[in-house]
Amino acid sequence: MENQKLIGIDLGGTTTKFAIMTAQGEIQQRWSIQTDILNNGNNIIPNIIDSINHHLQMYQMQPEQFAGIGIGTPGSVDYQAGTVDSAFNLNWDRPMTIKQQIEAGTKMSVKVENDANVAALGERWQGAGNNAADVAFVTLGTGVGGGIIVDGHIVHGNGGSAGEIGHMTIDPNGYTCTCGKKGCLETVASATGVVRVARDYAQEYAGNSQLKANLDNGDDITSKDVFDLAKQNDPLALLVIEYVCKQLGLALSTVAVTLNPEYIVIGGGVSNAGDFLLSHVQQSYEQYVFTAIKNTTTLKLATLGNEAGVIGAASLILDK
Amino acid sequence: MENQKLIGIDLGGTTTKFAIMTAQGEIQQRWSIQTDILNNGNNIIPNIIDSINHHLQMYQMQPEQFAGIGIGTPGSVDYQAGTVDSAFNLNWDRPMTIKQQIEAGTKMSVKVENDANVAALGERWQGAGNNAADVAFVTLGTGVGGGIIVDGHIVHGNGGSAGEIGHMTIDPNGYTCTCGKKGCLETVASATGVVRVARDYAQEYAGNSQLKANLDNGDDITSKDVFDLAKQNDPLALLVIEYVCKQLGLALSTVAVTLNPEYIVIGGGVSNAGDFLLSHVQQSYEQYVFTAIKNTTTLKLATLGNEAGVIGAASLILDK
Repeated sequence: MENQKLIGIDLGGTTTKFAIMTAQGEIQQRWSIQTDILNNGNNIIPNIIDSINHHLQMYQMQPEQFAGIGIGTPGSVDYQAGTVDSAFNLNWDRPMTIKQQIEAGTKMSVKVENDANVAALGERWQGAGNNAADVAFVTLGTGVGGGIIVDGHIVHGNGGSAGEIGHMTIDPNGYTCTCGKKGCLETVASATGVVRVARDYAQEYAGNSQLKANLDNGDDITSKDVFDLAKQNDPLALLVIEYVCKQLGLALSTVAVTLNPEYIVIGGGVSNAGDFLLSHVQQSYEQYVFTAIKNTTTLKLATLGNEAGVIGAASLILDK
Repeated sequence: MENQKLIGIDLGGTTTKFAIMTAQGEIQQRWSIQTDILNNGNNIIPNIIDSINHHLQMYQMQPEQFAGIGIGTPGSVDYQAGTVDSAFNLNWDRPMTIKQQIEAGTKMSVKVENDANVAALGERWQGAGNNAADVAFVTLGTGVGGGIIVDGHIVHGNGGSAGEIGHMTIDPNGYTCTCGKKGCLETVASATGVVRVARDYAQEYAGNSQLKANLDNGDDITSKDVFDLAKQNDPLALLVIEYVCKQLGLALSTVAVTLNPEYIVIGGGVSNAGDFLLSHVQQSYEQYVFTAIKNTTTLKLATLGNEAGVIGAASLILDK
């Protein structure tokens, strides 16, 4: 198996990314195709099979040269059966037998996992996680997701919902979440959450602020805009970022006292704010975390960006 | 190994409990000795060795009939080395080589683990945990401790501090904890915490209340007194219990979204308040936990009481 290669697939609502990797973690080939969600998403799996077979032919490779294919997918995944029960952004409203179909179409063995979990595996294996035994991963995107790795393995939990850090209640009196609860981390620490907090804070803010002017002007703003203005010392933007990072640091401190992982890795679009984000979260984290854990659970920024998915997906094949 | 027996030891500051068990979980013999913490705690390990050898002789058993000895101990445990770095309530202010000494003195192999972790293992194996793969355990005693079991194994974490649920920051503006932080779960949900909240609430309370009368009278009260009065509908006691259980339910909801264990088991002295405690915590938990997790992570009361320690300690020997 050490000389066999791996295929990693990151299935997203817009793009499906592929990589051929070595078992040592080196990416040898990369390509991507558009995800065709028309026709109730019925084209998605056949397109994946065709793309793999086409590229193997192109590279003159045989299925026997591969230890298997790992796939990260959105939706509600049954990783043992290799199926997805439903995935709204793929137009899948019924169970899809991903593993079975792709195995039949490619003659390679297939493993299927949730997209946040494969990103966690990717960052652990080749990114910020430094191959540590215990790593927690939080992804700050449109929503907030997470993946928990203990002793090198993804923790699924009894109902497959381990790592749902985005729905941790962080402020019982906070904003109402899409899930119906109040004060989920996601309501403030996602890209949409940062904008929500900015709009809310702007209502009460009376001072001079470019962010306030932009909002009053009716401009569409993004979480990146808020971070960029905060970096330029816009006083309202700074208040917003300080609040968001305070809540995120508090949430990560509870993950740390529960699991004491070596690293908590922060990824997703919002994490592109980089060290500015990290230093603010770190300040809050240090205030809230148990002293004995401060030096043994370290916060880090993700390093693999968009590649975490394909790399982590490929690594599923190495997991015994 | 299946026919070999196990010895479990629960080393506490007052009493050291012993049990001889089968690998199937049946307790065949139990006894206990006083823990002699005089002489800098130097008598503790020799006394354990003497007591084991004495009982083996009494029962006409040989070391070869045992798969090993498991010990749960307070203090800062290095479970890999089988040592305790320090344990203040045993008067151990220097590293103690527990495993090495007991192995030499009994001719049996020894495993050492933190006392909250062995209680978690005990409840998982023979108690409320129902032998589920993933179980979280929280013990509400003088302090608040915890143990996290994933895939049947204790999670230690990078610095050995996984499961320190008592030091989860649950209210950033809350009471100052012995650890130096503010708003740790332990400041309200431990036995001393319940009394602290009662004293604090009583200051502001103007209505009719037996609890208030007792406190104004200068009576020493315990957490059991507060629960007993709450069960009798004392209005101040009810306010106190509602606050404590609200915070505990919030803390357990964060453990649930992080790990989605099959059970979260609540033990320790405070849990003797039974279903009255559980139903109040449950109410808060359901308010704060992610919907998808509500039905797959169940709160339960511990069932083994004081025996969780010896049973869990014995089970260390079964862990590969």
